[in-house]
Amino acid sequence: MIARVDDVSAALAELAVLGATDAGIDRALFTPAEHAARERFAAWARACGARVEQDRAGNLFARRGGRDAARAPIQCGSHLDTVKGGGAYDGAYGVVAGLAVLAQLAREGTPTESPIEVVAWAGEEGSRFPVGTLGSSVYAGITPYERAAELRSADDGERFADAFEGPYGALGDVPVRESTQPPAAYVELHVEQGPVLEAAGARLGIVSAIAGQRRFIVQLHGVAGHAGTVPMDERSDALAAAAEVVLRLERLAFGAGECVATVGAIVVEPNQANVIPGSATLRAEIRAPRDATLETVSGELRAACAEIGARRGVRVTLEETERRDAVAMDPALTAIVGDVCRELDSRALPIVSGAGHDAMCIARIAPAAMIFVPSAGGRSHVAEEHTDPADLALGVRALAATVLAFDRHLTKS
Amino acid sequence: MIARVDDVSAALAELAVLGATDAGIDRALFTPAEHAARERFAAWARACGARVEQDRAGNLFARRGGRDAARAPIQCGSHLDTVKGGGAYDGAYGVVAGLAVLAQLAREGTPTESPIEVVAWAGEEGSRFPVGTLGSSVYAGITPYERAAELRSADDGERFADAFEGPYGALGDVPVRESTQPPAAYVELHVEQGPVLEAAGARLGIVSAIAGQRRFIVQLHGVAGHAGTVPMDERSDALAAAAEVVLRLERLAFGAGECVATVGAIVVEPNQANVIPGSATLRAEIRAPRDATLETVSGELRAACAEIGARRGVRVTLEETERRDAVAMDPALTAIVGDVCRELDSRALPIVSGAGHDAMCIARIAPAAMIFVPSAGGRSHVAEEHTDPADLALGVRALAATVLAFDRHLTKS
Repeated sequence: MIARVDDVSAALAELAVLGATDAGIDRALFTPAEHAARERFAAWARACGARVEQDRAGNLFARRGGRDAARAPIQCGSHLDTVKGGGAYDGAYGVVAGLAVLAQLAREGTPTESPIEVVAWAGEEGSRFPVGTLGSSVYAGITPYERAAELRSADDGERFADAFEGPYGALGDVPVRESTQPPAAYVELHVEQGPVLEAAGARLGIVSAIAGQRRFIVQLHGVAGHAGTVPMDERSDALAAAAEVVLRLERLAFGAGECVATVGAIVVEPNQANVIPGSATLRAEIRAPRDATLETVSGELRAACAEIGARRGVRVTLEETERRDAVAMDPALTAIVGDVCRELDSRALPIVSGAGHDAMCIARIAPAAMIFVPSAGGRSHVAEEHTDPADLALGVRALAATVLAFDRHLTKS
Repeated sequence: MIARVDDVSAALAELAVLGATDAGIDRALFTPAEHAARERFAAWARACGARVEQDRAGNLFARRGGRDAARAPIQCGSHLDTVKGGGAYDGAYGVVAGLAVLAQLAREGTPTESPIEVVAWAGEEGSRFPVGTLGSSVYAGITPYERAAELRSADDGERFADAFEGPYGALGDVPVRESTQPPAAYVELHVEQGPVLEAAGARLGIVSAIAGQRRFIVQLHGVAGHAGTVPMDERSDALAAAAEVVLRLERLAFGAGECVATVGAIVVEPNQANVIPGSATLRAEIRAPRDATLETVSGELRAACAEIGARRGVRVTLEETERRDAVAMDPALTAIVGDVCRELDSRALPIVSGAGHDAMCIARIAPAAMIFVPSAGGRSHVAEEHTDPADLALGVRALAATVLAFDRHLTKS
């Protein structure tokens, strides 16, 4: 049976079945489970009188008309795909909450000046086609459609455009938009995926910015040797040098203030108990809400690698593999979100999103804002991902109030 | 064609063909290549008039009688097996050098009071049956034969005793000794496998002790999390804690003086670029010529793990997986070795063996000594393992002089 979408917890539980495995949810773009989730979106949208449309990037829209049909829509949304072994809330919550708002507006017969669109952006997680925030990136013109069309699935090599035409791509009974229109305003409701709100006792987060990011591969080439026969002062131990890089980056992030930095992965060769490590490869990243911080910490990391390498006789190279600038949320919209959230939760907290979201793409073409609800234990991208149902419901109330406040704001201006 | 064994370089080149691969020599115990090496040993031994015998542990003996048949023999030797992808010198050099000494004694008609035995100890590298210095360990009574007999090959599961009876085990035409006799003295000539002699410009090393060893598995359990959303001061990063352990152990070894310590292997989970490492496993070892040093550094490592874990909110456990005490060489024999070596090379250097050798087993039942020659670049257990032919020849001269000096020493006493 189909849950009513305005019971957000029930609706999320229903979506959670789609792609469920013993180790979390697998709902990659254009797979049977993800297609079924979009089918469910369409059914919920139609049930509250919205018009359903899709585009060739796989984005799905539920549109409720406004009194002024000429106005660009107010959009809210998120994504229905998951990482491999993901949880029930990341992405799906923002989509379901948007539909719940539409359902409420329909039930209460509340008119808006601007059309309202709830969007399920395609392939945010990059878990099948190897580009994150793919659908919103195409929508915002960051990734040309022609490039997206040629992407190949990391799993089976299928072309994106072919997958869209295949049985688990486009929804059969839904018209395909040929052009995109920047919204008048965009708001995305999402679970925090971190521990900050929970630790502060806040139930709503007012997102000020989405952190920018630099990713690096650090390669360290020392000299492998017999662990018993090479004296300490004649070693060029790649792991010892790597350990210094790990700790130095950690210290740099602490020193920089609003910044996190992580070495998430390390591979050592030959990785044998009795052999001095000859080489090591680290995957490191730095995130901060200000690009200047990213630049400073990146520069300090580069200098540290050179110094550590020279001192230890280990050749250290640092390659930047990803570079994403910080995205500030729109100040005017964020002020409105702040007023709404503080009225619902006196402890509502300004917060920086350390994770990327579709909002950072849409922010390129429209004023954008985000609202967070807490994640239990700060956990995300895992089966145990959880948010208290009362917080989920409060987030929907915040989203509904924000959409209506945006509508008033846009009408005035 | 068969090289003359007293051309040591040519004889080693001939053995190096047996088990040769693109990535070094694979000559594990009771394989066709290793069997062929023992066949070659027997042929060389017979060519200089020695009697060839073997025991059920796979050890192979070339015996030249002394004037006093009642005396226990002077033994010298090493091993013919290699690690996977090993070099041409580790082990084989000491065996071939011993046979070259026998050949020289035969050629020159030099009598000795004591019988002389050259031994090829079986399975020193533990590269097929999972116990190192296996043959000498059985010979010395450290490993009961009955336990060795039941060992299973790591490659194909074959039982040791069955492999000995199989086509690549015992040599067909060689009598099997039913009892073992401790030698009156033992000397092993070996490549250093480290850079110390080369760096000092020494061509001979007078081994004072074989370092003892402690091996550990260090497990670190932190909390995995999203690399973008968990603030620095709320992390329990297992890799950052592991990095501290790596550097602390390095510092402890420097501080301890005669000591080396190595973290050779690290495995991190989940080892993804954008996930804070939840757990890490290190394989660490400490080697020193004095057991007191091993105890001190082990204790300091244990305390450091506890302190680092407590400070970082990471659970750190340290398990000792191997414990081998240091083995001092016999002072009287080592004094003789020292005199012999310094006469041949004014720069001959006292040195501690960081690697284990058959001599450390035989030292349990007889006075034992060791002589090293340099390893080019300190490299060993690799295809590029190399020692200058002039140094190889000088080592044989040192071994011959040592054996004769031992014979005189034993006759006097």
